[in-house]
Amino acid sequence: MSPPEPAVAAACVERGVLLARAYLSRVAEPPAAALAAFVEDVGAVEAAERVRRGAVPEKVARQTEARRGVDRAQTDLACAEGIGARLLVPEDSGWPRWPFAAFALTGDPDLAPPLALWVRGPARLAELSERAVAVVGARAATGYGVHIACDIAGGLAERECTVVSGAAIGIDGAAHRGALAAGGPTVAVLACGIDRAYPAAHAALLHRIGESGLVVTEYPPTAVPARHRFLVRNRLLAGMAGGTLLVEAGLRSGAQRTAADALALGRLVMAVPGPVTSGMSAGCHELIRKGALLVSRVEEVLEAVGRLGIDLAAEPDRPVQPTDGLDPVQVRVHDALPARAARDICWLMLESGLPIEVVRPALVELERRGLAEYREGRWQRPSWPRTGQR
Amino acid sequence: MSPPEPAVAAACVERGVLLARAYLSRVAEPPAAALAAFVEDVGAVEAAERVRRGAVPEKVARQTEARRGVDRAQTDLACAEGIGARLLVPEDSGWPRWPFAAFALTGDPDLAPPLALWVRGPARLAELSERAVAVVGARAATGYGVHIACDIAGGLAERECTVVSGAAIGIDGAAHRGALAAGGPTVAVLACGIDRAYPAAHAALLHRIGESGLVVTEYPPTAVPARHRFLVRNRLLAGMAGGTLLVEAGLRSGAQRTAADALALGRLVMAVPGPVTSGMSAGCHELIRKGALLVSRVEEVLEAVGRLGIDLAAEPDRPVQPTDGLDPVQVRVHDALPARAARDICWLMLESGLPIEVVRPALVELERRGLAEYREGRWQRPSWPRTGQR
Repeated sequence: MSPPEPAVAAACVERGVLLARAYLSRVAEPPAAALAAFVEDVGAVEAAERVRRGAVPEKVARQTEARRGVDRAQTDLACAEGIGARLLVPEDSGWPRWPFAAFALTGDPDLAPPLALWVRGPARLAELSERAVAVVGARAATGYGVHIACDIAGGLAERECTVVSGAAIGIDGAAHRGALAAGGPTVAVLACGIDRAYPAAHAALLHRIGESGLVVTEYPPTAVPARHRFLVRNRLLAGMAGGTLLVEAGLRSGAQRTAADALALGRLVMAVPGPVTSGMSAGCHELIRKGALLVSRVEEVLEAVGRLGIDLAAEPDRPVQPTDGLDPVQVRVHDALPARAARDICWLMLESGLPIEVVRPALVELERRGLAEYREGRWQRPSWPRTGQR
Repeated sequence: MSPPEPAVAAACVERGVLLARAYLSRVAEPPAAALAAFVEDVGAVEAAERVRRGAVPEKVARQTEARRGVDRAQTDLACAEGIGARLLVPEDSGWPRWPFAAFALTGDPDLAPPLALWVRGPARLAELSERAVAVVGARAATGYGVHIACDIAGGLAERECTVVSGAAIGIDGAAHRGALAAGGPTVAVLACGIDRAYPAAHAALLHRIGESGLVVTEYPPTAVPARHRFLVRNRLLAGMAGGTLLVEAGLRSGAQRTAADALALGRLVMAVPGPVTSGMSAGCHELIRKGALLVSRVEEVLEAVGRLGIDLAAEPDRPVQPTDGLDPVQVRVHDALPARAARDICWLMLESGLPIEVVRPALVELERRGLAEYREGRWQRPSWPRTGQR
């Protein structure tokens, strides 16, 4: 593991603030809208002190009552430091202030901002989230989905766009791997403590992400990945990125929930289509029917989330035909030309239904382009056809 | 071939009108907007007589000059009768008056209405086009596209919706076959004379369509399927149907042109997605990005083109989970429940972050649903779990 640089970021934040935020990150189960608003209001240090005493508004009391007696702030910070992690707090300049401002603006208690983030890795979240796409999808992904997720994530990473995902089996893992393979930054957002490698099969992957990118969670050390935490975590995936891309998702999936969060946060929602015979694409198709942007190439993702006028997707290559550039009259004359058994100009006039004075110049132009051949008063297509006949 | 019934329809139309329309259908290469407007203006019989004499407005003269001396009306009508076909004219009550009214309304000369239609088959076009979907797509379709086209066309036919297509190899053929297999009506619109079976490989298919549905073309007998005629024909496909569905289409395809025509005619455009790795779905994806409706099931097609409030698509089946119907607090308590090693209520309070007075009733409800087990003062998930653990 490369040496982490927690000292740099943490140096700007007083120890008291870190201890207060560490305590607060454990005292309520996220999302805790009332507590977040209270902290915003009175500051982290006073908020922590008043939560401990129980001297808080009723809504905050309900959120903190069960755990307010548990203060493991010192232990948690030490535990994090022990594994090369640190606590990133809103008082830190590395906090993704602007992307996260959307949480409070929604007014939705399910989309409360995190109180602090436990992070591991050399990258700075504020910078990474400036140009980031969340790539999410099904655990039970198909080979098709894994291929596309890996490919698009790689393309994003090559263009210095951060790939944010949830480190799950399937699409998430493929997205992280695609970004890592392209040497780009990637952020894994966990639904458990920073000290846990979940899923276990991705322990090595999480280790690699922590070496070059960032592993992030709002849950304190030792927190287990309970099911509702995956859904709660998804709002952070959506909130860290300018857009959320679903690669494969079933009809009732966490990825669809992430998309809903992204929409509520005013972020762009994109989805990759797939065979309609695949249940793994059904969630993507449903989203597109409801207004999500269909994307089929990384260029289209970048155009949608990228810088205005800079990240425009080039038009895909289209088939070229020898008759390109002909005007409608020339096309009709060309169509009328026999492939074999040359005919005279009167026959062509009847066949094309065009007056002779427009057939004549059209034939001249077709001959110039090598699309018509003139022999002994009669016309036909070239003996060695350069055009694809239907 | 079942006995055609041309006498019934034709009886309503004077022989003079039929002869005039037969002459007009050959005298100009479609689309002939100026001629169509002129015929609309002065009537078919007078229009034909004046075209013959050359006593017509300049634009009409340009469209008819090359062929005005050719009058094969008698021969063409006899030829049609000989193969069990007939000439359907706007003066006939079986003419699809309302669907075709859109042609003139566009004001686009490329979308001029047909002057007459040569038809073969027992069905009445006016009735078939009341509830019809054009199903079109690539010639070089994949197995996926052929499967979907056949499947959706069959579903449309089962629900008494006419399948209109172009009889081409690939998606078109699959659509016709799907409709025929379901015993439903299907209309094939040709880009050549009614006496020709094109493509030759579909001669038997066209024969079957002519027995139960309708084969239709605006081109006079013996007309060859020149390339531009396929594009010109496509407007009729779009115009006969309430909506146009692309199943597979390349980036530069006749099917995309049909979709553009449908849009110009104010009809709905739908497209089936596919793997983004398949060039055969690229045209569909491009259309969806530009606003076409993504459809993945026949029910979605019917909902879009069908009768308001009657043809609503049922929601697709979604996975059901044992925790469905739990409120958020109950979900959190359920998440906190250990699978093994039962814990007391205080532990559950800490783990869930919820006050004891809400944990208690949640546990009671979970036990009632068989999602929690109480043994000797401690709680856990049922020994024989009925929930899918992640």
